[in-house]
Formats: sequence, C-alpha cells, structure tokens
Amino acid sequence: MSNTITLLALLLLPHLFLISGAAAARPQCFWPGQAPEDAGCLSWRVMVEANNARGWRTVPEQCVGYVKGYMTRGQYLRDLAGVMEQASAYVDQAADADADGLDAWVFDIDDTCLSNLLYYEGKQFGAYDPSAFKAWASKEACPGIPPVLGLFATLLDKGFKVFLLSGRDEEALGPCTAANLEAEGFSGYERLIMRSPEHRGQSSSVFKSAMRKQLVEEGYRIRGNVGDQWSDLQGDCVGDRVFKIPNPMYFVP
Amino acid sequence: MSNTITLLALLLLPHLFLISGAAAARPQCFWPGQAPEDAGCLSWRVMVEANNARGWRTVPEQCVGYVKGYMTRGQYLRDLAGVMEQASAYVDQAADADADGLDAWVFDIDDTCLSNLLYYEGKQFGAYDPSAFKAWASKEACPGIPPVLGLFATLLDKGFKVFLLSGRDEEALGPCTAANLEAEGFSGYERLIMRSPEHRGQSSSVFKSAMRKQLVEEGYRIRGNVGDQWSDLQGDCVGDRVFKIPNPMYFVP
Repeated sequence: MSNTITLLALLLLPHLFLISGAAAARPQCFWPGQAPEDAGCLSWRVMVEANNARGWRTVPEQCVGYVKGYMTRGQYLRDLAGVMEQASAYVDQAADADADGLDAWVFDIDDTCLSNLLYYEGKQFGAYDPSAFKAWASKEACPGIPPVLGLFATLLDKGFKVFLLSGRDEEALGPCTAANLEAEGFSGYERLIMRSPEHRGQSSSVFKSAMRKQLVEEGYRIRGNVGDQWSDLQGDCVGDRVFKIPNPMYFVP
Repeated sequence: MSNTITLLALLLLPHLFLISGAAAARPQCFWPGQAPEDAGCLSWRVMVEANNARGWRTVPEQCVGYVKGYMTRGQYLRDLAGVMEQASAYVDQAADADADGLDAWVFDIDDTCLSNLLYYEGKQFGAYDPSAFKAWASKEACPGIPPVLGLFATLLDKGFKVFLLSGRDEEALGPCTAANLEAEGFSGYERLIMRSPEHRGQSSSVFKSAMRKQLVEEGYRIRGNVGDQWSDLQGDCVGDRVFKIPNPMYFVP
C-alpha cells in the first residue's frame, strides 16, 4: 500500500501541482499563489524587500522564472498598489504643504516612475549591461507606472514640490529621460536631478545622499521619499517617511 | 483510475503537506504556495517586512488564517533560516572580533531569540494585551528560535560580545526572562538589558536607541543588530548592519 501510494503520488503530484515548465500548465497554483518549488524564491524576494539580501548581482538562476511570474502575473502590481495606498494614507493624514513652497517629496525614476520590466525580461533578469541599458533608455519607451503616477499627481495637487532624482547619466540620458517622463504623464515636477559628470563612479547611495542634502540646504523639507532600491531610501536626509517600491529584478548599491 | 487517484490524493495530502482544518478545501494551493485569496495578505506581509506598513494594531481580520498558515506551515521558518544565512555570510566575510573585546552584536528577545507564536496563536493574533502577555512570559515557556540560536553561538565562538536588548519590563519579567533564555540555550551573552522603571512608557524605538547609545559610549562597536521589529533596527547607533527577522504577528513602534 505504501509503495502504491508513493507511486501514485509521483504520478499524481505533477497534475495536482501542475509542476512543469510552462506556467500555463499550473493555472490554479501559479500567481497569485506560487508553485511549491518557488517557496525558496519567495523567501529570497522578501529578503530583498526587507533589505536583508544585499549586493546581489543577478536574480538567482533558479528564481528567474519565479521573478518573471511575480512581475507579470499580478502580484507585483498588487504589491505596488498596496505600497502606494500606504503612501496616500500617509499624505492624507500628514500636514498639507506649507505656503512657503518648501515641502518636498523625492521620487526615484527607474522602476519607480518608469518601468524597465520589458528590458529586464528581455535580458532574462541577467547582469547589468550599461551599454544595452543606455540603448533601451534612449528609446524613451519605458512605460509609466500608474499607481506611482497617481501619488505624484496627488502630491502636486496638494502643493508639494516633487523632485525626481536618478542615477542615470545626465549627459547621455538627460533629454530622453525628460521626454519619456513627459510622455508618460510625469510633468509639473520641480526639478529633474540626474548624475552630472562629477558624480560618475559614485554609488547611488552616496550620490543621492549628496543631492538630497543639497535640497535640504536650499531650505526644502523632504516630507517623503519613494524608490525601488534601499539606496534611494537610506543615507543622509532621507525624508520624514520612505516608501519602498518592490523590485526583485536588480540591486543598486 | 481518476477517482482512485483523487481518493488517494485526499488520503495522502494531509500527510504530505500536513493540511488540516479549513486548508483541506484548498490542498493544492496552500503552503508553501498560497491560496489565491491570500494574495492581498501576501502583499500586506511583504509591506510589513519592508517597513511600508506601520502602526498597525492587529493582523487584518481577513489575514488571520493566512498569518497562522505562514507561521506554522513552513514558510516562516524558511524565511527565518534565509535571513540567518545572510547574517552568517556577513559574519564570515566581515572582520573577526578585535582582541580588545569591544566588538558587539545586539539581539532583541521576543520573536527574535524566543518565540511567542504559541501565545499569539492562542490570541488569534489579536490586539496586544499587557497582562495576558505578562502571564505568558512569566511561565518561562517561550521556545527558543533555533536558527537565531545558531547565529548567537557563532558570534560567541568568534569572540563577539552579545547584548540582549528587550523592551520587557525588568522588574516584572527580569528573572523569568533570564531563566527562559538560559533554558533555551541562550547563555554566555554579555548583558541582558531590559526596560528599567525610568524608561517605562517610552516607545521601543526611543528606549532601544538610548540603550545602544550607552553601549557605544562605553566603547562598544555595534557590528550587527538582529530584531523582528523595525523599531529594533532604526534610530541611533543601529550598528554596521541590521537583520530583520520576519514577524507578521504584531507591530511595536
């Protein structure tokens, strides 16, 4: 009996769990639930979001399919919408922007305002490739991320000054980034701050800390800060409250 | 054949996946995968771990079953082990403890070293109840959390001084906490720091910042800091690196 069960289990399990290459074969267990073999990838993803896993260069090989499923089958958008709901609730209960025009929010750009999912999916979530990324960004084809645009618009309505702060190279990508943002509805912000030549080679964390510090020295009060990387949200002058947008695709130090 | 398989599957699954109670109705999607209706609870849990969801008083009503499943059916232990693996890797690549005996790590106690899962499960993950919690803690029956004990032991082996820092009331719970820790293998630490009368009423974040600052003023260098609450890991003198242990059961400001 025990052997029969074992044998039948072996026959049965692939059907019950529809474990096979194609996601189409496991409709009821895939997103928003996951396949059992994805449990370790879920652990890894949560470690990334909680800043427990740092300095990784690529998505772990066994989690590439998981990350693709996470990003494209609904859970990413669900998570993202949840974070933006938290941010909206925070804005609603916090003080309004002061009439002096110095209450500010900071937004990162890549995978905060604009999505690079199509690019990273095409690269199978592999290692960072500066020239390929530059070619992608130059196309001005990054889709805007609607729940983030919603928060952005709310903040402008309420009189906050919004600063877009990006590690993208200003000389190479300044005009195309501005055009891409505009085309996706991100207009009306106070300033687009990108990496100027003297900041090349700095980590994102060091560069962004310096830029935020400069804003504070100009008199701005950073009321909120939104980014998909912890390096957007830690360091100097991070703001009264930070919101971490999910991103299991890559890590920026 | 198909019915036989179905029947055997029903017999088999409880053993394979230890599914019981309500979960039996959705065997193929439970832990480590989740049921589709749990997707919103997964979003919420990740927001808690990433410190996007703050100030919540109880687990959302619709997520009580989800949190129970998360905590008891394997994914919590998997996540916890992952975080402790990250910590071990960090310890392995970091400098050894200096011979001056001032390299320190700080560990929280509740749901970091000692588990209160049995208590919170009994309370259906409801609102904090100070007198019931005091009665529970007084029983000295909190199980130790093995992967955390592993890191604790490694650090002692390597010559680090380990400080246990808890918001538990020292007068009420000092002796029973020390006894519970000892019984669960947490011995050899440098100091057990609990909340003395002058710190009553302070938030955990304020109290723990003050205690860590005192350690730094004594000359200790906090090399690492482990806790299940962001209030353990933010504020003053948090340490060179922090590790967030998962906890979707309660929030401490």
